[in-house]
Amino acid sequence: MPEHGGDLSEAARLFGEPEGGWLDLSTGISPEPFPVPESDPASWQRLPGEADGLLEAAGACYGTSELLAVPGSQAAIGALPSLRPPCRVAVLWPTYAEHAHRWQRANHRVERVAADGLEAASEAADVLVVANPNNPDGRRFDPEALRRWHRRLARRDGWLVVDEAFADCVPGLSLAGEAGAPGLVVLRSVGKFFGLAGARVGFVAAPEPLRRALAEELGPWAVAGPSRLAARTALADAGWQDRAREILERDASRLEELLREAELFPAGGTPLFLWVPTDRAVAVRDGLARAGIWVRLFQEPAGLRFGLPGAEAEWERLAEALEKAL
Amino acid sequence: MPEHGGDLSEAARLFGEPEGGWLDLSTGISPEPFPVPESDPASWQRLPGEADGLLEAAGACYGTSELLAVPGSQAAIGALPSLRPPCRVAVLWPTYAEHAHRWQRANHRVERVAADGLEAASEAADVLVVANPNNPDGRRFDPEALRRWHRRLARRDGWLVVDEAFADCVPGLSLAGEAGAPGLVVLRSVGKFFGLAGARVGFVAAPEPLRRALAEELGPWAVAGPSRLAARTALADAGWQDRAREILERDASRLEELLREAELFPAGGTPLFLWVPTDRAVAVRDGLARAGIWVRLFQEPAGLRFGLPGAEAEWERLAEALEKAL
Repeated sequence: MPEHGGDLSEAARLFGEPEGGWLDLSTGISPEPFPVPESDPASWQRLPGEADGLLEAAGACYGTSELLAVPGSQAAIGALPSLRPPCRVAVLWPTYAEHAHRWQRANHRVERVAADGLEAASEAADVLVVANPNNPDGRRFDPEALRRWHRRLARRDGWLVVDEAFADCVPGLSLAGEAGAPGLVVLRSVGKFFGLAGARVGFVAAPEPLRRALAEELGPWAVAGPSRLAARTALADAGWQDRAREILERDASRLEELLREAELFPAGGTPLFLWVPTDRAVAVRDGLARAGIWVRLFQEPAGLRFGLPGAEAEWERLAEALEKAL
Repeated sequence: MPEHGGDLSEAARLFGEPEGGWLDLSTGISPEPFPVPESDPASWQRLPGEADGLLEAAGACYGTSELLAVPGSQAAIGALPSLRPPCRVAVLWPTYAEHAHRWQRANHRVERVAADGLEAASEAADVLVVANPNNPDGRRFDPEALRRWHRRLARRDGWLVVDEAFADCVPGLSLAGEAGAPGLVVLRSVGKFFGLAGARVGFVAAPEPLRRALAEELGPWAVAGPSRLAARTALADAGWQDRAREILERDASRLEELLREAELFPAGGTPLFLWVPTDRAVAVRDGLARAGIWVRLFQEPAGLRFGLPGAEAEWERLAEALEKAL
């Protein structure tokens, strides 16, 4: 399986357990998470049903009613490849590694394609997988380009899969509002912007026959009841979302400044993480780890992804570690 | 997809919305559920990890450390068929309908076998799927017979899959303690006895290579963090479990008496449900539904499955409905 951020057991294996515990900046999960109210006991007890308002709340938030709830967009990434016979799949690279891994595992012919090769790939592939904004480099793709690629793919029964796990802070980017068009598959998640990675709730915005096939593949009651309830509450709270967007943008600017002072130059990012391409990636990762701070190392291309600190003490710890360790 | 109990939208579609709402006796979920404490906020926020004590608590409860946590045993039922190339699968019939459905869907040759045909099936099939105790008829299989079938199957790299979703009230029956033996796959769930069907937590007790393949198939972070925490707390509470077993046995006796008074004669069951084979199944289901009580109808063989009422008012409502409606 691909490696992922947020694996502190890996951090501890390599560097031991730091005094005061790890400060985990290795994910893009918001440090300002939605405060989940206490769960309704019935949500633990009953088999989760569809008539609980989750899809309506998600629909209002994402601007589409063509939605299926899934146990994390990861579950959709795992199941989508089984819905097509083996075909040619072009996956943006670098991006979230599970995409290529899961299509390959299901016997598709997978080509990893740099951003500047996507236009050509949209002519040649049966399925094109893009993340917008991309992770780990934060790269944005113009919705007009995505629409053009989608039209081309759809014409020959192909799919454009857009992973919008980090799109909540850049709403103008999303294609979710166009969901329902044949061959367009948009993935959303409450893990990152809402800070509810533990809930395992995501959504697939896609035409009804594809949603039905995916639901059958995932089987009944795929999303836990309390998780559905937590996600519904978060998705329905537009006021919280507006405030969170402001806070995250402010925090991302603060992080950028801090990194620049340490001569680490972000080349991109989203309000939830910054991407620092650097040949010193391993050394910086190690130096920060010795100070108990865990960031995500990428080897190819060499770089580091920094998530946001949360509490003021965490900011100070990072500032100190950057100064000392580098 | 197969139909399932607990689908009150189906009840409402056929019979409208009853005054005072539905009394749902169509599942085998305990009406005396484990009282889940308030969730730790961190469990919503972090990607769920394996080092949270869940497997240790489950191991102490089930008597094995050869465990994988899955998002409901349903997820394992869905994923197991993809771990073998198409082969001959004998599935006990009747039983939980998803077993045969999921093996068939993955292109295996599935034969539905009555209980008295399992001995022969263990000689001929590559995979034998049994539920113990069985659902909906409550039939018990002697662990010695299961061991014999398992030995035969394992000798030719076959599997014995035992669904123990209802085994918590009949501990002497379980093969979980023998997990790790090649070719033995035992499924457990916190949905029924613990009354945590909404949590979507189950376990697969099986040899390590099979667990690893299943984990890879299900992908990372398959079980929600708050669900893991709730299950861990419930599985670790042996005192609650002992009391629950007593209460459920007492309640099942009370239900049996009530049904007999209405000339409905249970032919089997577990402390979580009773099985009433009857040619009048449709008429009785309809009569009870008109009184707002939803039980599970089976057409082949014709019969009804009654779950347990919980609050005293629910018992009275059932008693009244049985008297009036029949």
